[in-house]
Amino acid sequence: MKNRLYFNNLDNLENIKEELFNSIKEEKKYIGYYNLPKQDISSILEYADSFDRKIKNIVVFGIGGSSLGAKAIYSFLKPIKDMKRRLLFFESTDPLNISELIKEIDMDKTHFIVISKSGRTVETISVFKYIYAKNQKSDSYTIITDKGSNLDRFAKSIGSKLFYIPSTVGGRFSVLSAVGLVPLALCGIDIKALLKGAKKIKKSFFEDGEIKSILLNKAIFYAKNHEQYSINTLFAYSEGLKYFTEWYVQLWGESLGKIQKNSILNIGLTPIGLIGSKDQHSFLQLIMEGKRDKSVTFIKIKEHKPTLKIPDITLPHLEALDILNGIEFGDLINMQCDSIIEALLNEKEIPTDEVIIPRVDEKSIGELIYYYELLTSLVGHLLNIDTYNQNGVEAGKIILKEKLAKLKR
Amino acid sequence: MKNRLYFNNLDNLENIKEELFNSIKEEKKYIGYYNLPKQDISSILEYADSFDRKIKNIVVFGIGGSSLGAKAIYSFLKPIKDMKRRLLFFESTDPLNISELIKEIDMDKTHFIVISKSGRTVETISVFKYIYAKNQKSDSYTIITDKGSNLDRFAKSIGSKLFYIPSTVGGRFSVLSAVGLVPLALCGIDIKALLKGAKKIKKSFFEDGEIKSILLNKAIFYAKNHEQYSINTLFAYSEGLKYFTEWYVQLWGESLGKIQKNSILNIGLTPIGLIGSKDQHSFLQLIMEGKRDKSVTFIKIKEHKPTLKIPDITLPHLEALDILNGIEFGDLINMQCDSIIEALLNEKEIPTDEVIIPRVDEKSIGELIYYYELLTSLVGHLLNIDTYNQNGVEAGKIILKEKLAKLKR
Repeated sequence: MKNRLYFNNLDNLENIKEELFNSIKEEKKYIGYYNLPKQDISSILEYADSFDRKIKNIVVFGIGGSSLGAKAIYSFLKPIKDMKRRLLFFESTDPLNISELIKEIDMDKTHFIVISKSGRTVETISVFKYIYAKNQKSDSYTIITDKGSNLDRFAKSIGSKLFYIPSTVGGRFSVLSAVGLVPLALCGIDIKALLKGAKKIKKSFFEDGEIKSILLNKAIFYAKNHEQYSINTLFAYSEGLKYFTEWYVQLWGESLGKIQKNSILNIGLTPIGLIGSKDQHSFLQLIMEGKRDKSVTFIKIKEHKPTLKIPDITLPHLEALDILNGIEFGDLINMQCDSIIEALLNEKEIPTDEVIIPRVDEKSIGELIYYYELLTSLVGHLLNIDTYNQNGVEAGKIILKEKLAKLKR
Repeated sequence: MKNRLYFNNLDNLENIKEELFNSIKEEKKYIGYYNLPKQDISSILEYADSFDRKIKNIVVFGIGGSSLGAKAIYSFLKPIKDMKRRLLFFESTDPLNISELIKEIDMDKTHFIVISKSGRTVETISVFKYIYAKNQKSDSYTIITDKGSNLDRFAKSIGSKLFYIPSTVGGRFSVLSAVGLVPLALCGIDIKALLKGAKKIKKSFFEDGEIKSILLNKAIFYAKNHEQYSINTLFAYSEGLKYFTEWYVQLWGESLGKIQKNSILNIGLTPIGLIGSKDQHSFLQLIMEGKRDKSVTFIKIKEHKPTLKIPDITLPHLEALDILNGIEFGDLINMQCDSIIEALLNEKEIPTDEVIIPRVDEKSIGELIYYYELLTSLVGHLLNIDTYNQNGVEAGKIILKEKLAKLKR
């Protein structure tokens, strides 16, 4: 992975950078996600290797941090891999959506994974109950939760397979824990290579590699300019990264939208995910001419596959577009990306950078994930917020509980 | 459709409202989308009625305004309707995506619709060429374009079926023209009911109905507060509205991100689409505690179908969640929505409103579409911008053309 910044921090920032780097090194001791690349995955690999070959669908009951990561990786790799099993997600309480999903699966060939860190997630448990009422065979279920949660106790009481989420790993930072690795391994995704990608970025950052100064510079620029550039757009030129941008939106928004420490001030950076070239026809106008409140990060895939060429044919009256003839779609999409980068740089007031991953594979998306997790931690530290909590979502949960309790009376 | 605003314009605004209303009445004479609800659709209905019954896939080559609208309506209605045909979209130059889509379709049972207002869209024409090189039967294609475009001439030269987009209807406002109606009618969607929904909002707005003062109030509030509340979030509590939010993002962003008239000032309102309850676990934290730069509009469906109940079973150690037992998912999702609205209103600084549509059907989404088109026009007028152009996307197109030309030398 390469990352090129087209903006500069003009001040001498060596002191800030050193302080920031040391803080993150300190954080690494008690925030669990940093060390996931070196975890022991042998029990997950064993489970996947010996898994019932009749099972053709893996269905996850999970939402937010319990679904977005695995979904991002699975949908990125799906077009290039012959998956062992299909991966599906129940993430909604919408009855139309639930009944549509149920129609799609053959229960006899399906294994269910219940993922909830707290074990109390309303969406997850309500849909799980709906299915469990129809099928109470304990070997139809794998449960992934925190050690000691009520869901942990439930899993033990029915004797289903159980994996733990390390207690120091937060939901939205948990994709490289059992939360993501178990469903992905069951589909045949190479989770070793995934972690290898993450490890590469980890090493480059913590051991003075190329990515260290880039990430520090980028984080400082985003934090220093958070008032003006309050929206951080991720523009990925690959249809397969659609759900990766959704994962990014949760990671960034839920981590960086906070009340500041020892303060009453609301602060936040707003994430937006876009897909190129499609969203050139949707969102680009706003970036180019609208309020100067957005930074833009482009993601490009260096080596596109398969090789598909625009045929060398001339159509009557459409000769002007013969300029496209003989060009590979993979080159076209990258030229489209380069053209938009150039157009943005000409505008001068839009902070732009470019991430290039070599190809569609496990290692590349592992790199992207760890890169964004690090960037989030760095910016959160500079904004003087608690990157890892989400107190703002509690109020709505309490109100819902009151409404439900009233119904029962 | 009901719309309830939880914010107030405190000033006396009768004069502004009257001026605004009169300007829109004036605009209605030359901006074409306003009058699409009363268009003659007999030729489209006839075409759909007599269409080859062997055809099972309708594939649209189109992007942005040529795809997002039909996609929004089709995916909203798909779970409740027995569609006559499947609707698919080629919207990308990503070779992996193109080859995946091709694998999914049986060419002999597929009809292709090429949609481009200008007839010059790079993505649309390049993928069309790719397919056309393999299949040159003119009756495999329907073309929808502006009268007099090169694509119009091409269609005539090969003798394929042709529909026009009225020249006064812009791409992102074109869903209720042939652009949306032809593919939707071929899938068996009731386009009469769709237009009926739009007509209802049109009448209510232009003939002093309930929606008139609500829309004027909302538009004035958004425009007056565009500096502080520069992000307008649409939070739809229905999985089926996922692509509707994408349609909204294009409509809002591309219309309202502009350089002001007779000025050099960049101005813009940023749209964000969210789906509930899912995104309570992703974006809600940022809305609740982050920077106070967001308004939120909730969309709720009054009558959910099918009836699915959370079973009345108690699971060991999960007794705390028995509070959900016996509740319909349709009631749960609406209670979740109400709980978040209440939580936001307690925060006081987050402008919130609520749109309720009666059910999942053609009429409801027709209402939503026309409501958002009107709101966009109203806000655009107040921001003193040209709502209907998109000059900002030209620079990138010119650079791409130069890059392509260089390759050919």
